[in-house]
Amino acid sequence: MLFLALSGSLRRASIHSAVLRAAARLAPPSIEVHLCAVLGDLPLFNPDDLDAPGDAVQRLWRAVAQADALIFASPEYAHGVSGTIKNALDWLVSFGPFALQPVAVINTSPRAHHADAALRETLTTMAARLVEPASVSLSVLGAHLDEDGLVDSPELAPAIRALLLALADGVERARGLDAALPRHAL
Amino acid sequence: MLFLALSGSLRRASIHSAVLRAAARLAPPSIEVHLCAVLGDLPLFNPDDLDAPGDAVQRLWRAVAQADALIFASPEYAHGVSGTIKNALDWLVSFGPFALQPVAVINTSPRAHHADAALRETLTTMAARLVEPASVSLSVLGAHLDEDGLVDSPELAPAIRALLLALADGVERARGLDAALPRHAL
Repeated sequence: MLFLALSGSLRRASIHSAVLRAAARLAPPSIEVHLCAVLGDLPLFNPDDLDAPGDAVQRLWRAVAQADALIFASPEYAHGVSGTIKNALDWLVSFGPFALQPVAVINTSPRAHHADAALRETLTTMAARLVEPASVSLSVLGAHLDEDGLVDSPELAPAIRALLLALADGVERARGLDAALPRHAL
Repeated sequence: MLFLALSGSLRRASIHSAVLRAAARLAPPSIEVHLCAVLGDLPLFNPDDLDAPGDAVQRLWRAVAQADALIFASPEYAHGVSGTIKNALDWLVSFGPFALQPVAVINTSPRAHHADAALRETLTTMAARLVEPASVSLSVLGAHLDEDGLVDSPELAPAIRALLLALADGVERARGLDAALPRHAL
């Protein structure tokens, strides 16, 4: 299974990107986690350009279409989602293959809730399948760990591995549901 | 007084930009409304670049510092703020002159509330002074009016003029408050 990981921060030392890179290293052999590198290259969303989107938008679309599920880890800025993650989602609102995708939202700061709630609301509105057992709070902010520290952490590494398995389970369940649906409903 | 108007949509035929351009034409002689043209040129926010921001960020900062108040009109995309408006705010979070600015938030679609609430939450978190009498819902979406139609509308034109006056009143009140505060508290 291929999971596309989207970090809402462009900071080089971003803990959100670090969590997703750690997830890539902690994944079992049956799961591959690709960090989506294109978010920082996207233009700001303009509905006028949807008919002829540039190269970065097309790369995002291809990556989403090829993935079996998506994982989000994104900072909270001023009690809101980051502009970067919302801009990526704005480009995906009308992109058919996004709908019904199983998604996991990692909240890296259990004390912050505004951005987490807003991201969940937007994803559900976009008809993504939010996999709750995979959408966990990890006390990463304040733990002062980098990618290596996360991979070695006796608390966080198993939690990251568990959420990947929960998301894989969500993918299997979604496939079961889709197989049971009449074709025209998909 | 100089009001800086920020539209959260880059669409050429954006009703949000049209409302703000109409406001510029409907303003009384004592008020000048400048549409902020730089939002679409901003790079995606990266905290690593705050020390040496590019030209577009500096133009945004200068425009905000020069304004007596800000007016926002922004679309709701998938039950969230537009990435474009949040990206601009992300660049302003740590910009000192933004704090204590009187702001008005126009909701162009009274039936939509997620983005309006999220924008207000973020602005208040950033210590802006939300001027409630100037932050109104206008039934613009669905009215099928362009900028000229708005300026000529017997319902909407007076409402737009009234919110400008309410914002000017908010600026006066803020100045009164600031004058009454000890200097070191500002």
